[in-house]
Amino acid sequence: MLPTYAAVDWGTTSFRAWAIDGNGNVLNETRARDGLTTAAERGFETVLEQHLSELGLGPDAPAVLCGMVGSRAGWVEAAYLETPLELGDLGARAIKVPGIARPVFILPGLAQRAAWEPDVMRGEETQLLGVVAEGYRTGLVCMPGTHSKWVSLSDGVIEAFSTFMTGELFQLLRSQSILKQAVDGEGAVAATPAFLDGVRRAFEAPALATNFLFSIRAGWLLHGAAPTDQAARLSGLLLGLELAGAAERHGDLHGAALLASGPIADLYVAAFEAIGMGAFRRLDADSCVRHGLAQAAISLFSKES
Amino acid sequence: MLPTYAAVDWGTTSFRAWAIDGNGNVLNETRARDGLTTAAERGFETVLEQHLSELGLGPDAPAVLCGMVGSRAGWVEAAYLETPLELGDLGARAIKVPGIARPVFILPGLAQRAAWEPDVMRGEETQLLGVVAEGYRTGLVCMPGTHSKWVSLSDGVIEAFSTFMTGELFQLLRSQSILKQAVDGEGAVAATPAFLDGVRRAFEAPALATNFLFSIRAGWLLHGAAPTDQAARLSGLLLGLELAGAAERHGDLHGAALLASGPIADLYVAAFEAIGMGAFRRLDADSCVRHGLAQAAISLFSKES
Repeated sequence: MLPTYAAVDWGTTSFRAWAIDGNGNVLNETRARDGLTTAAERGFETVLEQHLSELGLGPDAPAVLCGMVGSRAGWVEAAYLETPLELGDLGARAIKVPGIARPVFILPGLAQRAAWEPDVMRGEETQLLGVVAEGYRTGLVCMPGTHSKWVSLSDGVIEAFSTFMTGELFQLLRSQSILKQAVDGEGAVAATPAFLDGVRRAFEAPALATNFLFSIRAGWLLHGAAPTDQAARLSGLLLGLELAGAAERHGDLHGAALLASGPIADLYVAAFEAIGMGAFRRLDADSCVRHGLAQAAISLFSKES
Repeated sequence: MLPTYAAVDWGTTSFRAWAIDGNGNVLNETRARDGLTTAAERGFETVLEQHLSELGLGPDAPAVLCGMVGSRAGWVEAAYLETPLELGDLGARAIKVPGIARPVFILPGLAQRAAWEPDVMRGEETQLLGVVAEGYRTGLVCMPGTHSKWVSLSDGVIEAFSTFMTGELFQLLRSQSILKQAVDGEGAVAATPAFLDGVRRAFEAPALATNFLFSIRAGWLLHGAAPTDQAARLSGLLLGLELAGAAERHGDLHGAALLASGPIADLYVAAFEAIGMGAFRRLDADSCVRHGLAQAAISLFSKES
């Protein structure tokens, strides 16, 4: 029997929590910008207790946490597990936060230690546990973001994964580089023709990536290309480069699952179509992390009735 | 007959000038950090007159200028010429600065307007005029920098060129990205094994560029890789990506000329050797820009005796 508990996804810049009852019903939900930086100032326990109280959870309700909260810069370090990882084992490998009254567990991250392709994730492994719980146990998963992940799953096991700095490079180039004047610095990018052209070009000739980037400035200087188009082109170029890299590392991308929510999901769908990737499947990132936390909670909090 | 004149290379962050007599002898030289930003505040004429006076040049000595001083953000805009460009024509296409007593001419930059590979240079075309004057009239020229240029020369004509954002990306990633902690943020990079490994990996698998970048962080987190090694790896990865792009755009790199001075020249030589580029030729960037300005001065200032 499972008690009512808190499921928490706690990252560098955001905090999301759900109150879930013993039958798996979501009772309540909260989102805040209380990421690691804020929490490190105000105290992790203080921030957590405030949100759990808002969710109507009593002081005995256990909590399961994932994300950067388990990093060295977080609350309590939950050391990296290693590839290959049987996702069903994730809950049992959680770390209990010491010295506090409430039972709070933090899920570990995942490392790929191979000397020539070292890589890390923290939070995505819990989403992947949710993906497996939703029945997608074998195949490639694309998880877009500041640091996009591509993950090879085989029968519920993470075999290998690779991170691409797509989102961070987009923000850096958009706001800090010589391209700044040439691109629109605000707002979401849309899947315009300039975006799709960027995707195709970088996917077909990834070696020319940094030349294509400079052509954003040149196109603005010489042809007066519109900054909104050039921002879309920048996004498309970086996304096409990521797709070329994913294909190089993981093989055929056909049939991959896309784990994303909101506008970024639409951009990736458009990019997949632009390079002729067929039969991909969409999964919702929000529901996957909640399902993953719920799976871990079952391992951690179930008591024989 | 050529009078004594000033040859000036005036960029965004630097000012270099030489006093040269009618026989081509360098009489005097100055370097300052009076780039465009400083000059826009103090006045271009004021800055120029101060330096020419320090060089011992009288008020009648003409001056020939190249670099960003001729851009829209510079003193007087010298509109871009277009590829293909016969370099011998460069001097005759200079713009005279109006409204001042001294005869001052600014050399134009060069644009490649092709819709799918727009590109620009300003200053490098004058160095290339020097390259041609030194007898290298046909072949590929590599000009490393914040925005590295690769140029295809054919019998003294610039046929095509491509810019790679190598140096700027290195600075951005080193100082502003999540890699910041993992790399040493100061000083020049050396051609260490980590640098050479980075060059080879990115050259062989350019699609994985942004994955290799993230592995710099992962290697630091997981294996405690030394920040000086990781800075060298970062530099090597970006340089290897540039070499892959240059090969994609310009074909075989064998026999290219390297136009660079100082530590960056040594890094490129090591990178060329790492990918098995044979028989390349080194040219000195400083002497090429001076020779290019001197060639332009002959077109501009020679009088029949």
